[in-house]
Amino acid sequence: MTRWTTDARSRLERAAVDLYLERGYAETTVAALAERAGLTERTYFRHFPDKREVLFANEETLRAALAAAVAEAPDGDVRSLVRAGLDEVARRLQPRHAELVRRGPIVAGHPDLQERELIKLASWTTTLRDAVVARGVDEATAALAAAVGIAVLDVAARRWLAGTPDADLVAGLHDALAGAGDLLGA
Amino acid sequence: MTRWTTDARSRLERAAVDLYLERGYAETTVAALAERAGLTERTYFRHFPDKREVLFANEETLRAALAAAVAEAPDGDVRSLVRAGLDEVARRLQPRHAELVRRGPIVAGHPDLQERELIKLASWTTTLRDAVVARGVDEATAALAAAVGIAVLDVAARRWLAGTPDADLVAGLHDALAGAGDLLGA
Repeated sequence: MTRWTTDARSRLERAAVDLYLERGYAETTVAALAERAGLTERTYFRHFPDKREVLFANEETLRAALAAAVAEAPDGDVRSLVRAGLDEVARRLQPRHAELVRRGPIVAGHPDLQERELIKLASWTTTLRDAVVARGVDEATAALAAAVGIAVLDVAARRWLAGTPDADLVAGLHDALAGAGDLLGA
Repeated sequence: MTRWTTDARSRLERAAVDLYLERGYAETTVAALAERAGLTERTYFRHFPDKREVLFANEETLRAALAAAVAEAPDGDVRSLVRAGLDEVARRLQPRHAELVRRGPIVAGHPDLQERELIKLASWTTTLRDAVVARGVDEATAALAAAVGIAVLDVAARRWLAGTPDADLVAGLHDALAGAGDLLGA
């Protein structure tokens, strides 16, 4: 992507969160989003298929980063592989605290956005499982590790968003992983 | 529910799985479902709002059983509470192996049914969390335990459905919980 394209995407994302908070998600049109960003509707539709997807603009980038981190992790045991993937997502979310805090109530307020959020997490679970399998782990173990790993990441991210911007998501993730291990273990 | 009402629901559920497998989910109408069950469309709509919900007919019953098992669990520590809830769901799924094996590919074949399945799991997670909180556990711990607990139950149920009908889901669930504990723990 050129600098201008990246810039247009970011402007559309910011305009969407602003307008959804100001006017409501249901009440905002793509035309209004484009106008707020100083762009045309045609440009909007080059980046996003509808007014929902602009709220999930970073999903694919994070999914690719998750897969790459597992592929490149130095240690090949399943626990290290999952942690490498989850840590990478957490590191990339860290600088976006303010933006994600603003986005939260928009998603929470609409069932179709909540469903879309569940689909995102399910897609990350599949990506993590497949990346762990590609490192030679059996599918049953990989599926279990990916499911609990993404579930813990989601809980840790919600806790982090409820806290202050300087809270460390990677540290919170590690605490949650250890806590989950204690809750489940023998 | 009277015996006849229960019977009508069961007949509609069976007719739905039969027809969705024979003709396809998209191709089957509510009129055809009702006819196959020997009932009227009007009766169908007294039980289910649309042709999707008939595939999720037992969700509310299981959710209530999950909550009740946690409320009545003899031991009040979070680990015992979560296990009591998950065990109860597993016990209730056990006799439905054949039916759920037939249902699986229908849900897997349609994105809107997969989304509905994700919503079901999210709803069970919320129910389990709230039931654990009602037993005096703090919300953060309850949310983490519920999220990983339902994630493990889902993985264990999928494994069980891929196996033979006599496989023991409760035992498989306990194995998966122990396995997840090993994967996450220190």
